[in-house]
Amino acid sequence: MNVNDLDTPHLVVDLDGMEDNLNRYQAYFDEHGIGLRPHIKTHKCLAIAHMQMARGAIGITCQKLGEAEVMVNGGVDEDVLIPFNIIGEQKLRRLVALTKRTKLTVAADSEYTIRGLSEATSKAGVEVGVVIELDVGGRAGAETPEIGADLAALADSLPGVELRGVMAMPTTPDKRPFLQKTLELFDARGLPHPIVSGGSTPASFTAHEIPELTEFRAGEYPVGGMKHLSIETHSVAQCAGRVLATVVSRPTANRALLDAGSKSMSAAIFDGPKGGSMGHVIEFPEANFYGASEEHGNLDVSECDPQPQIGDRVQIIPVHPCPCFNEHDEMAVIRGDQVEAFWPVHARGMIR
Amino acid sequence: MNVNDLDTPHLVVDLDGMEDNLNRYQAYFDEHGIGLRPHIKTHKCLAIAHMQMARGAIGITCQKLGEAEVMVNGGVDEDVLIPFNIIGEQKLRRLVALTKRTKLTVAADSEYTIRGLSEATSKAGVEVGVVIELDVGGRAGAETPEIGADLAALADSLPGVELRGVMAMPTTPDKRPFLQKTLELFDARGLPHPIVSGGSTPASFTAHEIPELTEFRAGEYPVGGMKHLSIETHSVAQCAGRVLATVVSRPTANRALLDAGSKSMSAAIFDGPKGGSMGHVIEFPEANFYGASEEHGNLDVSECDPQPQIGDRVQIIPVHPCPCFNEHDEMAVIRGDQVEAFWPVHARGMIR
Repeated sequence: MNVNDLDTPHLVVDLDGMEDNLNRYQAYFDEHGIGLRPHIKTHKCLAIAHMQMARGAIGITCQKLGEAEVMVNGGVDEDVLIPFNIIGEQKLRRLVALTKRTKLTVAADSEYTIRGLSEATSKAGVEVGVVIELDVGGRAGAETPEIGADLAALADSLPGVELRGVMAMPTTPDKRPFLQKTLELFDARGLPHPIVSGGSTPASFTAHEIPELTEFRAGEYPVGGMKHLSIETHSVAQCAGRVLATVVSRPTANRALLDAGSKSMSAAIFDGPKGGSMGHVIEFPEANFYGASEEHGNLDVSECDPQPQIGDRVQIIPVHPCPCFNEHDEMAVIRGDQVEAFWPVHARGMIR
Repeated sequence: MNVNDLDTPHLVVDLDGMEDNLNRYQAYFDEHGIGLRPHIKTHKCLAIAHMQMARGAIGITCQKLGEAEVMVNGGVDEDVLIPFNIIGEQKLRRLVALTKRTKLTVAADSEYTIRGLSEATSKAGVEVGVVIELDVGGRAGAETPEIGADLAALADSLPGVELRGVMAMPTTPDKRPFLQKTLELFDARGLPHPIVSGGSTPASFTAHEIPELTEFRAGEYPVGGMKHLSIETHSVAQCAGRVLATVVSRPTANRALLDAGSKSMSAAIFDGPKGGSMGHVIEFPEANFYGASEEHGNLDVSECDPQPQIGDRVQIIPVHPCPCFNEHDEMAVIRGDQVEAFWPVHARGMIR
């Protein structure tokens, strides 16, 4: 099947570009002795997760329990980290079941979470690993190294949980002092930290500047996106996740409409030199994808020569691959102009 | 099953609130002799579409062919309008098939679209209705009444297509002159216009100020959203589509984190008095839902008294119900605190 036979809009993944990314990121982390623990929330696809494991990943990251269940069910079951507070009776029952099927580690940033984990696992006679989340990015986590160490001491003292260290997001080099101070407190109190987990694809290639990191969580690197294009970690060819779309209307001389809106691209916006953009149109790089409604993508084509015409088919690099992939049930996997396979976005919408 | 037994995050629809909306919007359009043609892209659910038809809707609106196929397959097959340019061989084959199963009308804003429809339908010996889209909102459509009338004349002259009139979006009262001028040109040239289709839920209750409208496309009215709350077409009780979420972290005295981020709420943002908001927290109306990542919702709770605590469960009114529903595979349908049913979001992700 030729890529031109695909109906649009359609999520496509260029295999040559993706394999290049899988290889070069794994090589970087191998070179620096840091474990790569891919975050599967980007692609959500078993086939890609297996490709990552086969290249040497130490395990995977899943943001929610439901994503982890999908991956473990599909045989990606060596070692799973969930960097999220798991609370509530329903989820704790599922967590207990999952500990019997994979090596599982979860994050915690409160006494509430740690005690809940301990009660559920110890009652069931199982154990789960815990890393203390440190707030280096203004989202979740212990606000200070002292709070982090106190939580770690609590986890270390309770049955059913095994303290395994810390995690933080994003770990740009400026976050190193917070990590160092926390680990000093851990060491002073005899608290183990076999895992020091950093993360964020854009910060990947500076991971070696934080020698304390034992592992790194990166999600977007297999497929890239507009941000990666702009910071030049990915070329156009390496931005392997794309949305195939068709020009369906040319209402004015300056505007073209695509059949791919926010329900195909996601609503993510990249603030670039031409203002907000919702995607990079590979065939018409001068086109400005300035906005979208759910099913209409709006291009300013005034700087394009030649201009796109109704019926033209284009490949668009999304702003943020994670929500973009989440809009789709499946991806067409292409090599050159040939469709090699259709892969499900297996963990799509696994929000619980 | 009690609503408290649902795991979170979970899409819920309050039946009392939704039935109230279904009744009062149908009553308004009945009173003014305007056909209500609900847009199913909001709920994407067969059960709700059947409730709308049972109350007197003249047919439905679907934004993409795939949504229409889901609805017709589910018995919502009386009269379907697709306000979108259908082009390309794959889609035209499906369109031909669909004309045999429902009364079908599609929009067109170019000669390319009209000729493509005519060639496909006339070759297959079927007919499809066409309405000319008029650009009153800066998206798709004929830019001027003259262009609209010329396209209508083309459609009227070709086999396999039946000219049925015009459509526009959104039809606030200020758009009336564009419609009037277009219909004058239609009449002067003997072009039929049995359908004059307006749309947009926020503009619903001014539809009678454009007496030319024969029908109105409204999508969001069954469930509302933050915009409808702010313009007071919907009370909190009438904002029937909600996301049930749990407070999973309290990293600081001013911040609370929900387990519902953009993958549960959608990434839509409402510009309100406190800045951008991603949802209205019913139990903590003073909380400011100021941002989210995919699985974390960020609340500023500094003005809440009492403050939400870890483990608290809340119902959140989303900004824009259409993309919010599209994040979910199913909705829990509740009445009071009882779950009456689980309904699939049948047409979720039907982007082709």
